[in-house]
Amino acid sequence: MPQSLNDIRELLAALPGPDEDAGSRASERESQLTKPAGALGTFENLAQWLSEWQGRHPPRIERPTVIVFAGNHGVTAQGVSAFPAQVTRQMVANFEAGGAAINQLAKSAGAELTVIDAGVDPGTGDFTAGPAMTEAAFCEAFRSGMGAVSGGTDLLALGEMGIGNTTAAAAVCHALFGGDAAYWTGPGTGVAGAALENKIRVVGEGLARHRAETNDPLELFQRLGGFEMAAIAGAATAARQKRIPVVLDGFVCGAAVAPLFAAAENTLAHCVAAHCSAEPGHVHLLERLHLKPLLDLGMRLGEASGAAIAISLIRAAADCHASMATFAEAGVSGQG
Amino acid sequence: MPQSLNDIRELLAALPGPDEDAGSRASERESQLTKPAGALGTFENLAQWLSEWQGRHPPRIERPTVIVFAGNHGVTAQGVSAFPAQVTRQMVANFEAGGAAINQLAKSAGAELTVIDAGVDPGTGDFTAGPAMTEAAFCEAFRSGMGAVSGGTDLLALGEMGIGNTTAAAAVCHALFGGDAAYWTGPGTGVAGAALENKIRVVGEGLARHRAETNDPLELFQRLGGFEMAAIAGAATAARQKRIPVVLDGFVCGAAVAPLFAAAENTLAHCVAAHCSAEPGHVHLLERLHLKPLLDLGMRLGEASGAAIAISLIRAAADCHASMATFAEAGVSGQG
Repeated sequence: MPQSLNDIRELLAALPGPDEDAGSRASERESQLTKPAGALGTFENLAQWLSEWQGRHPPRIERPTVIVFAGNHGVTAQGVSAFPAQVTRQMVANFEAGGAAINQLAKSAGAELTVIDAGVDPGTGDFTAGPAMTEAAFCEAFRSGMGAVSGGTDLLALGEMGIGNTTAAAAVCHALFGGDAAYWTGPGTGVAGAALENKIRVVGEGLARHRAETNDPLELFQRLGGFEMAAIAGAATAARQKRIPVVLDGFVCGAAVAPLFAAAENTLAHCVAAHCSAEPGHVHLLERLHLKPLLDLGMRLGEASGAAIAISLIRAAADCHASMATFAEAGVSGQG
Repeated sequence: MPQSLNDIRELLAALPGPDEDAGSRASERESQLTKPAGALGTFENLAQWLSEWQGRHPPRIERPTVIVFAGNHGVTAQGVSAFPAQVTRQMVANFEAGGAAINQLAKSAGAELTVIDAGVDPGTGDFTAGPAMTEAAFCEAFRSGMGAVSGGTDLLALGEMGIGNTTAAAAVCHALFGGDAAYWTGPGTGVAGAALENKIRVVGEGLARHRAETNDPLELFQRLGGFEMAAIAGAATAARQKRIPVVLDGFVCGAAVAPLFAAAENTLAHCVAAHCSAEPGHVHLLERLHLKPLLDLGMRLGEASGAAIAISLIRAAADCHASMATFAEAGVSGQG
């Protein structure tokens, strides 16, 4: 388990690649199934991707898991959110009581739901005043994410809860991909007008302060991100090591894995983007990460809600690929 | 049950409207659930739409049904398809044996699947030589669609199988919405080059022939459409009468209900479009029908495949709306 940013860099450089044998068995079978070539569109790509990253053919989704990491953000002291910071803890209690959207969505998808407090109390420091996290605290959160991933799962949906975390996510994206602060900063749970202007100012000033100290993507992540974001990065890394494909949720989840992408090539090849969020920075982020979202439903809730919805789709793709008849088996004539 | 196009017109003029009481109970509850207002995007619209068209609150999806109607097309004599017409019957056998994509997708969605031969043998007449169907035969297929809808279902996904039917669908769209034949005509199962040019010519010449006889949308549908398409139109109509919301599949399914839209206002208000097909005419058609697709996965298979995939999404939206806690129940603070 990594104890430093350097340990994490070494981990990322040594991640396993796709199972090319399982991938070629998938593409061979796909071409024989009773449908015009390519007619299942993205579903065909999903079957191939699952085979490559589960390392087996046919791919199966029998034990999907949703993990929601929660954390608080010191930057909420700057008035960046429409909701008070105490809502993070209240929503964790709501998750535990089964009353939140993600509870219904995980159940509807037949997925197990785990909620992990990655740092709700006391939360991170205010990044406009200093680093959000120390290197040691960041690595501890990263390890908690790694430790949360069970080898028994075959599809992992990742998400978060943290009042203030679209501000942290915007700052991380701004740090990694440039542009200006307004390009990455949006309404989150619902700020507008002067409050949104303030949020943009906070993101810009926060980055300016830390950019003066470093250009390293992981160190900028430690200085601007959050505990739940570090945990998501850890979980995505552990999933890759354990051959578990990952479904990413929205803007904050994407920003949490973006530093892995910036730190080393192909670190997100085992991930799909569940959806494009209504948070305006997400569409820019997906482009930078070369991820094409499966869904575009105008959602902006977080909690892994979009990722949970995508589970049913991905399972349906696996089911189709595994169980359809071939032209030969069904006695169906091929293309004339 | 309608015996003539006039009977169908009368039916369409007398369709029931939405349950406004159930709809307002849905919007009242939605605003109290533990999430920022609007954060579930399209899911919130789906919960409201289900309430209005199921005529109950909360909405529930407990018995979803997929119906695939099959029919053959005389216009295949003009060489418009990449697959021979016998594939329609072979694929019906594949559906019955459980080997097609729709079998896996319906199962994955927890939906019952019904396959109905609406006119596989002998199929319609070649519309370049005369009307595809007589009024009597068209009405018989429409009635078979109406009769296929069980009152016990609470969400109905509609789709089709019929070699040659993207040609019929293009001709119907061209007849109802204008433009030129090339605008509505695409590769279907995979024609390109000279074969696609021929398909465009067939669509244009077919419409020119029948346009000289009538401008009535239902009569043009009878002259250019197919048995499976007439049955889909009948099923969508019966579903409205029985308060069953409908999920439409792709281009051919959309073209099959387009004449209802053209014949009378609001006849499709109880329908959602599951997805935007890769068949190029579909995006134009969805625009004309004022339908925003839930999914865009580059699919172009038919068989109700896209509609079946959308069932899980729609059920998740109903589950969220019905079972989430309110701010008051969960003790979560509201917007600051």
